[in-house]
This record gives sequence, C-alpha cells and structure tokens, in this order.
Amino acid sequence: MRVIRSVQALSAWSRALHREGVLIGLMPTMGALHAGHRALIRAARLSCDAVAVSLFVNPRQFGPAEDLSRYPRQLRSDSALCRGEGVDVLFTPSAAEMYPPGFQTSVVVRGLSRRWEGEHRPAHFEGVTTVVTKLLSLVRPHVVFFGQKDFQQSVLVRRLVEDLNLGARVVVCPTVREHDGLALSSRNQHLTPAQRRAAPILYAALRAGRTAILGGVRSAARIRETIHHTIAAEPLARVEYLAVCDPETLEPLRRISDAAVLLGAVRLGRVRLIDNLLVRIAER
Amino acid sequence: MRVIRSVQALSAWSRALHREGVLIGLMPTMGALHAGHRALIRAARLSCDAVAVSLFVNPRQFGPAEDLSRYPRQLRSDSALCRGEGVDVLFTPSAAEMYPPGFQTSVVVRGLSRRWEGEHRPAHFEGVTTVVTKLLSLVRPHVVFFGQKDFQQSVLVRRLVEDLNLGARVVVCPTVREHDGLALSSRNQHLTPAQRRAAPILYAALRAGRTAILGGVRSAARIRETIHHTIAAEPLARVEYLAVCDPETLEPLRRISDAAVLLGAVRLGRVRLIDNLLVRIAER
Repeated sequence: MRVIRSVQALSAWSRALHREGVLIGLMPTMGALHAGHRALIRAARLSCDAVAVSLFVNPRQFGPAEDLSRYPRQLRSDSALCRGEGVDVLFTPSAAEMYPPGFQTSVVVRGLSRRWEGEHRPAHFEGVTTVVTKLLSLVRPHVVFFGQKDFQQSVLVRRLVEDLNLGARVVVCPTVREHDGLALSSRNQHLTPAQRRAAPILYAALRAGRTAILGGVRSAARIRETIHHTIAAEPLARVEYLAVCDPETLEPLRRISDAAVLLGAVRLGRVRLIDNLLVRIAER
Repeated sequence: MRVIRSVQALSAWSRALHREGVLIGLMPTMGALHAGHRALIRAARLSCDAVAVSLFVNPRQFGPAEDLSRYPRQLRSDSALCRGEGVDVLFTPSAAEMYPPGFQTSVVVRGLSRRWEGEHRPAHFEGVTTVVTKLLSLVRPHVVFFGQKDFQQSVLVRRLVEDLNLGARVVVCPTVREHDGLALSSRNQHLTPAQRRAAPILYAALRAGRTAILGGVRSAARIRETIHHTIAAEPLARVEYLAVCDPETLEPLRRISDAAVLLGAVRLGRVRLIDNLLVRIAER
C-alpha cells in the first residue's frame, strides 16, 4: 500500500491508472476506521481494480462549536486496517495541502443541504461537498463509496456528482451496527458506559417507526409521534430532530405512499449521534 | 469535426483520448465567435493534440435584467469557423442537457467574485464558475484557454482550477482589438454606428492610465482621475466602474509598486462593454 500526502502525487497516480484503463474505487473517510468502513473497502475491492482511501479530518465540515479537536485520530491503526484489506493508496493530506493559502472556492448543493443536518450544522455540508469535489477531481474514481449512516450526505453527493458531471458512480452501502443496533460511528468511542447503554434507543425508535409504517400507519405525524415516544423513555437522550421524509428530495412527508426515510439525530451528553432507516412499502 | 450535444458523448470522447495519452485543449465560449476566439483556438491547436470548443449561452451567468435573449446566436457560422480552424469537437449542449431537472449545485469563488463585475452582475460569476467546473469535469482538458478581455473571469478560473484540483493549466491569451483599439466582443454587434465610433474611448482611457503609470504616477487615485477624465470627453459613454487593482487579488491599490491591472466597464446605450490593461513597471 502506498501512502500519499500530496495532491500532485495522488493525481499522478490516478492519471497513470486511467491511461491503463484501470477501474478506480474511492472511499473518502475522516479516519478512525471501524467495521463500517471495512465493509465499504470490501465492497470497493470487489468491484474495482484499484482502491484509494482518503483519510482527512476536514476542518471545513466542522462548525466552530463542534468536535474537530477531539475527533478521534488513529493513523497507525487506520493504516494497518487499510493495508490488511488490500487498499492500494491511502491519501492522508494535511489541511494546508488541501486548503493552501488563498483558497476560497466552495461547492454548494443548495436545496438538499438546507434541512436536517444542514440546519443543525450550518457550514457542514458546504465543507463536505467542497472536499468531495476536490477528492473526485484528484482521483477521478469510477466508483465512490459512502455509508448509508450519513443518509443526507449520500443524497447530496449523488446530486453533486450528477450536477457537476464528476463522472463517478455513487455506491451507498448499508449501515453496519453493533449487536444491540447502535450504528457504528467514530464518535461512539466518546460515549460514557451509561450513554453507550442508552445509545441504541435511536435505532430502536426508528424501528418502531418502521413497524408502524409496515403495520399500515400512513400519517407522518403519527409515525413521528411513535418515534418520539420511544426515545422519550430514555432520559439520557435529547432529540435534535426526527423526520419522516421523501428519500430523494429529503422534504418532510405528510403521508407515506411508497417510500420514506426516517431520519434522526440525538445528543447523549456531548456526543451527537445520527441514524436513519429507509422504508419501502411493498406493493400489494 | 464532431458536433456533440450530450454530456455522455462528450465525456466518452474525453475518456477515450485520456486512455491514449492525447493532450486535450478546451475553449469554453458562448458562441458568436470572432477573431479573439480564433486566436484562442489557434493557441490551443499549437499546444494540444485535440481541441474541444464548447458553445453554450449559459443562462445562469445572465442576470434577470440582462441580455440573455438578445445575446447573438449564430451556430452555422461559428461551426464553420471551428471547422476551418481544425477544431476536433464542438460541444453545443442545450440548457436542459447542462441543467437537468433537480439541478441545484453551485461553485462559488467567494473573495475574487465579490468586486467589479461581481458587484454589477450579482449572479454572473457563480454561473461562470459552475459551468466551467462542469465543462472541466466533462472534458478533463490538460489546458483550458480564456481571453484576457474578461480579466476578472480569468483570475477566478485560475483560482477555481487550483482550489478544486481540476488539473488543467489555464492559459490566458491577449485581447484581440479592432484597428481603433476596441476590444473584440460579441456584444459589439449591438452598437449603433454612433456608439461604435464612441466605443474605443474605454481602451483610450485605460491607455491614458497606463501612460500616467509609466510616466511615474504612483497614486491609484490620480490614475483613476486620468482615466475618468478621458472617458468624460465622450458623452455617449457612461462609466460603471474604473479600478486600479492588484492583478492577483483584484483588490484596489492605493499606490502602484510593481504591477497593476486597470479595469473598466462602460455603458453605451443598452450595450455594456468591459476592457482592461495590465501594467508592469520595469525594474530600474
């Protein structure tokens, strides 16, 4: 595995592979890799000839009051995981390499970034879409892999890739969970033991919502009530938002006809967790 | 020459050439091609193996009160000019091809787009940088060609290409002028005979500014006065802005030390013209 730190070296690597017609897969990450990332790398390995993983804790997607400084950094074990999974290139640039002096360009996906995470983390998605555009320009992957856990992000990236003609196929892989349902996240390691025991409540509540839908409930308000009601049983969890949305536009639904995504964000102390469930109603 | 209308066909063309290691030059235009464009095509022919010209009157870079509907369209003669100059691909997409339903992504170069043209044409540069990003993603040219007449645009594009790692070299070719100094522009054809006679005043005024600098004047205020004074002699011309700026940051200068760009925009009736002059002071 080659570790690359400069944008020039990364794009030279990509150019050489493109000349040989090699199919490239890219997985953008912020490091602190876990089994969710591993599943994405394996999906990339299965469908691509060469796999690049970027590992960059992107300062532009953290708000001033957010957890940039305490976001977990563990380059050594991340690097071992990538090597063990057969990653070809690990791209670990510095912030100065990605944002040299004078940097001032932003990529904005206006409508889709407004609600939910965008509302609670104002500059977040602009940081994400800008860095993803840079990574896609540098690597020019044929396929780019994201996890479903960040559902809104995956919808935004699909839109971005189509709108800017970035030429990659966007593959979204299922969320990987602990045995008790908690979605894997690098931020889980900040949970206290009590918070960790409480954390699966978010997934449990979304499942209660799904059960209601599959049981015939069609009113989004009633489904949200069900989800809220489940979370309310857990005093450590504070809801940031819970939404029943169209999976493509992410606009809130009033009634569910064929599909919905249930989105949720909760706080457990200082830790903020998100999760989601996609529900499709089988046709009769 | 191949005429391409779809983004898929354009990016397939580019992919095939990249695989063969062919050096691609791109020239984005809005059509109504004139000798200024011809000079750019010739520069591209000299330094690249394959030349693509895009011809797209981009609605997103026109304001609601601007001249989108009367911007000259002359596909037949544009196509003949490109064929005659040995262009390989002429890309003429429809607006729906470039901005399909649901399109919502924008590329913004924040600082550099604020002043001058950005101030007088609020959405203009966001339209330009978004469409240029799309074209660069589709064609992935090794070199992209712009004219110096749109000086601020060329500075923004350089920034954009570096910031988003678009991987093209940006070449800016000198402004081509009529015998009386008027910068060639597709909009010149809207001038009445009297306005046409008056139009060279902008370039004459910028030259008066340059003469003052080369004669030893260092105060930007005095240089602007000189420029204004020259234009004031022409009653048909109404100044929109005249600026003495740093050629890289485009911020107004107070004193000139080594280099400056003189930027100007005037209106002659309904026609808006821009021009500029780059002045470098030779070291003693």
